[in-house]
Amino acid sequence: MAELRFGLVGLGHWGPNYARLLSGQVPGARLVACADLREDRLGMIGTLYPQVRLHGDHRALLAAGDLDAAIVATSASTHREIVLDCLAAGLHVLVEKPLANSSEACEEMVRAVERTDRVLMVGHTFLFNPAVQRVKQLLDGGAFGRVLYLAFRRTGLGPIRQDVNALWDLAPHDLSMLRYWLDSDPLEVTARGQSYLRPGVEDVVFLTLRYPDDVLVGIQVSWLDPVKDRRVTIVGDRQMVVYDDVHPTEKLRVYDKGVSYQPRGGDFSEFLAAVRDGDIVIPKVESREPLDEELRHFVHCVEMGLRPRTDAIEGLRLVRILELAQADLARHSVEVAR
Amino acid sequence: MAELRFGLVGLGHWGPNYARLLSGQVPGARLVACADLREDRLGMIGTLYPQVRLHGDHRALLAAGDLDAAIVATSASTHREIVLDCLAAGLHVLVEKPLANSSEACEEMVRAVERTDRVLMVGHTFLFNPAVQRVKQLLDGGAFGRVLYLAFRRTGLGPIRQDVNALWDLAPHDLSMLRYWLDSDPLEVTARGQSYLRPGVEDVVFLTLRYPDDVLVGIQVSWLDPVKDRRVTIVGDRQMVVYDDVHPTEKLRVYDKGVSYQPRGGDFSEFLAAVRDGDIVIPKVESREPLDEELRHFVHCVEMGLRPRTDAIEGLRLVRILELAQADLARHSVEVAR
Amino acid sequence: MAELRFGLVGLGHWGPNYARLLSGQVPGARLVACADLREDRLGMIGTLYPQVRLHGDHRALLAAGDLDAAIVATSASTHREIVLDCLAAGLHVLVEKPLANSSEACEEMVRAVERTDRVLMVGHTFLFNPAVQRVKQLLDGGAFGRVLYLAFRRTGLGPIRQDVNALWDLAPHDLSMLRYWLDSDPLEVTARGQSYLRPGVEDVVFLTLRYPDDVLVGIQVSWLDPVKDRRVTIVGDRQMVVYDDVHPTEKLRVYDKGVSYQPRGGDFSEFLAAVRDGDIVIPKVESREPLDEELRHFVHCVEMGLRPRTDAIEGLRLVRILELAQADLARHSVEVAR
Amino acid sequence: MAELRFGLVGLGHWGPNYARLLSGQVPGARLVACADLREDRLGMIGTLYPQVRLHGDHRALLAAGDLDAAIVATSASTHREIVLDCLAAGLHVLVEKPLANSSEACEEMVRAVERTDRVLMVGHTFLFNPAVQRVKQLLDGGAFGRVLYLAFRRTGLGPIRQDVNALWDLAPHDLSMLRYWLDSDPLEVTARGQSYLRPGVEDVVFLTLRYPDDVLVGIQVSWLDPVKDRRVTIVGDRQMVVYDDVHPTEKLRVYDKGVSYQPRGGDFSEFLAAVRDGDIVIPKVESREPLDEELRHFVHCVEMGLRPRTDAIEGLRLVRILELAQADLARHSVEVAR
Repeated sequence: MAELRFGLVGLGHWGPNYARLLSGQVPGARLVACADLREDRLGMIGTLYPQVRLHGDHRALLAAGDLDAAIVATSASTHREIVLDCLAAGLHVLVEKPLANSSEACEEMVRAVERTDRVLMVGHTFLFNPAVQRVKQLLDGGAFGRVLYLAFRRTGLGPIRQDVNALWDLAPHDLSMLRYWLDSDPLEVTARGQSYLRPGVEDVVFLTLRYPDDVLVGIQVSWLDPVKDRRVTIVGDRQMVVYDDVHPTEKLRVYDKGVSYQPRGGDFSEFLAAVRDGDIVIPKVESREPLDEELRHFVHCVEMGLRPRTDAIEGLRLVRILELAQADLARHSVEVAR
Repeated sequence: MAELRFGLVGLGHWGPNYARLLSGQVPGARLVACADLREDRLGMIGTLYPQVRLHGDHRALLAAGDLDAAIVATSASTHREIVLDCLAAGLHVLVEKPLANSSEACEEMVRAVERTDRVLMVGHTFLFNPAVQRVKQLLDGGAFGRVLYLAFRRTGLGPIRQDVNALWDLAPHDLSMLRYWLDSDPLEVTARGQSYLRPGVEDVVFLTLRYPDDVLVGIQVSWLDPVKDRRVTIVGDRQMVVYDDVHPTEKLRVYDKGVSYQPRGGDFSEFLAAVRDGDIVIPKVESREPLDEELRHFVHCVEMGLRPRTDAIEGLRLVRILELAQADLARHSVEVAR
Repeated sequence: MAELRFGLVGLGHWGPNYARLLSGQVPGARLVACADLREDRLGMIGTLYPQVRLHGDHRALLAAGDLDAAIVATSASTHREIVLDCLAAGLHVLVEKPLANSSEACEEMVRAVERTDRVLMVGHTFLFNPAVQRVKQLLDGGAFGRVLYLAFRRTGLGPIRQDVNALWDLAPHDLSMLRYWLDSDPLEVTARGQSYLRPGVEDVVFLTLRYPDDVLVGIQVSWLDPVKDRRVTIVGDRQMVVYDDVHPTEKLRVYDKGVSYQPRGGDFSEFLAAVRDGDIVIPKVESREPLDEELRHFVHCVEMGLRPRTDAIEGLRLVRILELAQADLARHSVEVAR
Repeated sequence: MAELRFGLVGLGHWGPNYARLLSGQVPGARLVACADLREDRLGMIGTLYPQVRLHGDHRALLAAGDLDAAIVATSASTHREIVLDCLAAGLHVLVEKPLANSSEACEEMVRAVERTDRVLMVGHTFLFNPAVQRVKQLLDGGAFGRVLYLAFRRTGLGPIRQDVNALWDLAPHDLSMLRYWLDSDPLEVTARGQSYLRPGVEDVVFLTLRYPDDVLVGIQVSWLDPVKDRRVTIVGDRQMVVYDDVHPTEKLRVYDKGVSYQPRGGDFSEFLAAVRDGDIVIPKVESREPLDEELRHFVHCVEMGLRPRTDAIEGLRLVRILELAQADLARHSVEVAR
């Protein structure tokens, strides 16, 4: 099969990673053209990849008519227009998360792609992360027991996005892992946050969600934190797992720990909490690059005509959760206003 | 001045620490008698401190009539009765946190002590912790800037209390630090939690609070977590501090970090987020034992007739916040019930 | 059997730990009397343990004639005289490491105890440390393979001893573990060190030893290091272990790692180094206090008439290694003298 | 000035990093041709950089006659021949460390370059590392005091080199830092090591060196260690520094710690060791890539006709120390032979 010819729209923070992977690393795919509004970014790519064609916007990129697929790595507010144009031009599309900045826009994309036989995939990179996949295996295996609760932290000092707040920028990662691991959607979404740097753009958000089967979830996202933290704690009734994405080599820790709790006879009608505190295992997890895996999955789906693991419907589901959280943020910003 | 003669009521998890400090370490104070309902606990104290008198309950302890002060380290549900009896017997009282398990009980104690000239102090130990005091100095100094938000984590695998849930057991520490550092009370309290080990007793609670001046606070408390974590992140607009109470020697880290954010001219109407990422300082903090400091403060207040830093009014304030949180927990347990 | 009556000689840095354990914690043993040259130290013990008799030197302590056993926790240069006096008085003796400051003194003690039926034990505490014992089990089990080499670090800022240099103060711990784990004595001892604080007293020493079967050992001891480090790396040909005695809970890490190396055919006559990099296991190790275990072992040996695990012969062996190291230190201080 | 045209000889572990930096990143320099004996390596470079010419050996690379400078990144045993050929062809040369595998070969290169006006530089990369440069500033500043001793650890599981042992592979980094920081050569070199994977190729070496002014140095290098460690401890009499090259962001720690030691009056003729234990500062160190800095320095020296900071004389000095260490290794391997 011939190599897929890719166009890349958006060369900001994340886009150049696609350019690197499509220049010799991912088989069956080749970067043909790039588009960005800013000349300095185009110039940088031109120096590194002299054979790639450069355009000032996505329309010029599409006009050449020589592409099979597009990657959309622009800001979320522009996704609707660019993705629809790419689909109209007959291209397969891989679009960065979140799919769009409203569920209404997502729904329009879902409808648009369903009228074609093209692939539309959202870049929920963490589902292609070997550590996240290993957690899935642990949860589905027998030793872990029942999932009780999860706590996520995604903090650091920047990078600060222009187009979305910290909720829309950071929480999609955590919400996509939750959907992957729990295979369900939340029943309740609570959010409290605050805008410190720019009015109306939350820098810090505390999210709490309830999933079916009494699973409680806490998520903290922040752009304004001295420590880069990417940690998930998953507590089961027989094992517990900590996933630390910042650690260079030891990303997972499986704790053979638990508490069982039984009424104790006698005068004091006390309960006896028996803590089981066993070994910790740090499983060896391969260090494949998630974005590389994601691109290979996209290429594979295009070649085989398959539905991608993170299709537009998945993207829509997450945006609906973000909207619920945003609404709760808005409601409570008003209540406490001075 | 003669040594204060102490009686100690309650020899569970924490009580023996008072016995140790009152046996030769804290000047001006001496342990004379102990009371506990359980014989095994009395026996253990008797072996270590043969000269201390042992009683089966606090009434027998008071009946001897030879005490100046009492320490109440029993479960919170018994505080009201024991503290009132001790005050009625003319003793000064140091009672463990929380002051009581309801604001109504706290108010009764506040009224009771106001009718006497006795000292009633609540054991909010963290206010006597040198690292917590250093944070106060940092916040009050000029370099830190304005406090923006704080995140607290207080997790671990047990110890699991019989009498209260994780909120009432663990959050008083964080709430007392907040009051000390911010000198204000919260305007809004949100709580979500879940009971996994015993029905109706929350093991895991996510709290979010809003304080005046847009200060946002997130607190996670849990008895069911594989990692013992006691960490507070305090973000100011000019410096940031992490206080890690679990670290044996490096409890504080002061980060010379910040973000300033300004509109940028030009076609893209972007904002320029300038991240300042400077040195980190780990100040040397003395390693005095907080409980020792707390006892010395209590002895000093008794000797001088002073109002203690953590008096009954302070204890009442915190219990009111706990009640607000508990009410929110209850409200949302119902909503999501299956 | 009646309780053993103990006398404790030496109340410096380490002695008070014995006093604590012999006051109600170790069964079958009771502290009756203490001796120290300094009044302030005696006074401190008197306050904590009012029932214990206090003496100005070990002769006065022995004169009362009411003891079964003595603990000698004085500086090494005084061990010979005090131990011999205690044995002459018919007592069993537990003496701190090193057994003495010369092999000649050790040999005299060995001869003295062999003329009696008393127990003479050296306080090589690490052999009673649960983590060290677990390492022994790992090495003796099948999975570890052959021991290749070991690296020890024992550094920190003080405490600085008056009587011995850093080699004699710190290295006995490492040398006793080596003897326990390898069950052999070194074939070659190399030492380089330097005296920075006081002339003739080495603060920093790098030791290298060769044991049978090509086992190489490096040891660094230092009183002048910013970081408290107590780490041993044990490399086998099938597994590797790191023992970190400073970590509060995770003292051992067992690495399923190794390298196998085979000639590779072809033009380049290269060798193929196949690195196996598997899981890491942090086994749960009980947190019993080593000194408590050591005292129980001593009491048990006295009661049963057994030879202790760390008898005077063991103490002598270690002192001989220290003398070899000291001689190499001395030889090379001269060579490089300015 | 025209761009320097570079040829790169050797595409093993390290060579591709030069290819990347010379393809658009380092100004004034451009990769024109590569040479390697293995076709697979040439193919990989050809895919990434289609415009670069590929050759089967360095002679073919030189034959084209269109180069200004060569980078020699082959195994140490081939450096002499390739470097001399490059110099004979009139090129400037940057050669990987160690300069050669014998001081005799180094001396021949020194003589050869002195007959020309070309630049011959050795790739002692750590001298271009911002953290290493910051340490130099600290040592030269007033606050640090006198350097007392240094301890280096350079361990990990592989990569295992075919051509040299762990001493010649790893210790050049540490020895080059020592020369940079101390500005002197060692007076005594002691080495003990062992060959576990292949006969005659030491995998683990413990080095001890004495430098002028009583500066003691310990270095441990190992290919067979479960933990990747790149740590240097530098102890001064007023401050101490730990340089941890593995830490992603906090590479340096400056400890305001020290010990002063004075005779104490009174009966016990003791010395009083006063430990000063102050703040720790983690200075912000820029994260420039050392190899990029090194290449820019080489280009600058070529353009300006300057002598590089790490010239052939420097390379020779280090190889002489390695030879002394290797001789000590050999001497003591014989002595202990079974």
